[in-house]
Amino acid sequence: MNPAPALANIRVVLVETSHPGNLGAVARAMKVMGLARLYLVNPKCAVDDEARARASGAVDVLEAAVVCASLDEALAGTVLAAATTSRRRDLPHPAYTPRQAAPRLLEQAQAAPVALVFGSETFGLSNEQLARCRWLVNIPANPDYMSLNLGSAVQVLAYELRATLEDATIALPAFEPARHEEAEGFYAELERTLVAIGFLDPAAPKRLMPRMRRLFARAGLEREEVAILRGILAAVQKGRNNP
Amino acid sequence: MNPAPALANIRVVLVETSHPGNLGAVARAMKVMGLARLYLVNPKCAVDDEARARASGAVDVLEAAVVCASLDEALAGTVLAAATTSRRRDLPHPAYTPRQAAPRLLEQAQAAPVALVFGSETFGLSNEQLARCRWLVNIPANPDYMSLNLGSAVQVLAYELRATLEDATIALPAFEPARHEEAEGFYAELERTLVAIGFLDPAAPKRLMPRMRRLFARAGLEREEVAILRGILAAVQKGRNNP
Repeated sequence: MNPAPALANIRVVLVETSHPGNLGAVARAMKVMGLARLYLVNPKCAVDDEARARASGAVDVLEAAVVCASLDEALAGTVLAAATTSRRRDLPHPAYTPRQAAPRLLEQAQAAPVALVFGSETFGLSNEQLARCRWLVNIPANPDYMSLNLGSAVQVLAYELRATLEDATIALPAFEPARHEEAEGFYAELERTLVAIGFLDPAAPKRLMPRMRRLFARAGLEREEVAILRGILAAVQKGRNNP
Repeated sequence: MNPAPALANIRVVLVETSHPGNLGAVARAMKVMGLARLYLVNPKCAVDDEARARASGAVDVLEAAVVCASLDEALAGTVLAAATTSRRRDLPHPAYTPRQAAPRLLEQAQAAPVALVFGSETFGLSNEQLARCRWLVNIPANPDYMSLNLGSAVQVLAYELRATLEDATIALPAFEPARHEEAEGFYAELERTLVAIGFLDPAAPKRLMPRMRRLFARAGLEREEVAILRGILAAVQKGRNNP
């Protein structure tokens, strides 16, 4: 699936952010996962040099940020808004983990804008602001230290969205697996060699060959690896004949 | 499930980090997800006021960091090391997404230390350093902007581990995995033996040892298997001396 259309519909809404460095970190966290729509509700700081430095190559996201006077303004046009927190709250909201929320957010985002809402560094979101969000997303955290940095919270959510979209698209490198008879040919040659070098006593083989089979089966032998391994066995045998 | 025992066995290994702010951000990213073991390999900066400021309430993680002169030193005693990158590489490593890697890392971490390895901000990890890690973990990212901040990369992995732990019950590994130094000892002996039998030309080694490492890394070597394999190598060598 091409992640672009769904991700383009995801807004990151920061409410009353007070540290310019966090604005930059958020922009970078977004862009690295393919998000671009940043909304700043009543920001308590400017997009300054510190913000731009922390944004690194994501200054474009920062410069394109939409500044709003209210949360309602930032949520206008969205079909779903999720308030993000690392604290559990006793609130009458459906509360999800990022992993539970991501598929639903992406599903909605294919057709219309959705928003991830993050409160201020010091005060979080007010109850009135939370009431304007349909969902609560609780980021799992250490109960003894829940102080998730704003940029990190955005990073976790943005990552979760992208990972859910791409799920299983980073494929293992395509190597050609060995055929059954090729693997068996290797095992037979390995056994002959182990007998020849005196490591395996045919009269008391114990569990040596089953152990070897188990090891290579776990790896899943490739065709080329079987060729290399047989080459090694041939060199071992040849060394014995012509030392 | 109580996340503490598995998370306590997870090391975050930073190689040649150059920005103190990143050290602090990493410490905070770790602690917020319940990780505490930080290793600094040949750091290019000091744990200074900037690092402590960025660590916020995670200064304890920063102060307890173990400084090492080499990657091997930081990986000593680990049974699994995963090198983290946002770039795809053409390397003979098993490569996983964080989501694919997390259950396996946690499974191993219930019994013994495992490591997440992160390269320097500018140069990443060298091929030699990558070769010492059993796995590659590719963090999903925007192909047009893969510049994941070091603290963010650690945050994503730490989050994924915690989210996976809180999601599921992880099974215990049935066999005892080989320690890093045991696996490295086997690779070194294998290389010596391959040279001795004339299969590996030290002047033109090609990709033979990386291929061998890849095969055994995929299997996940057990302690007893390493002992058997070294026994076989000893028998090969002895056979050459006394044919």
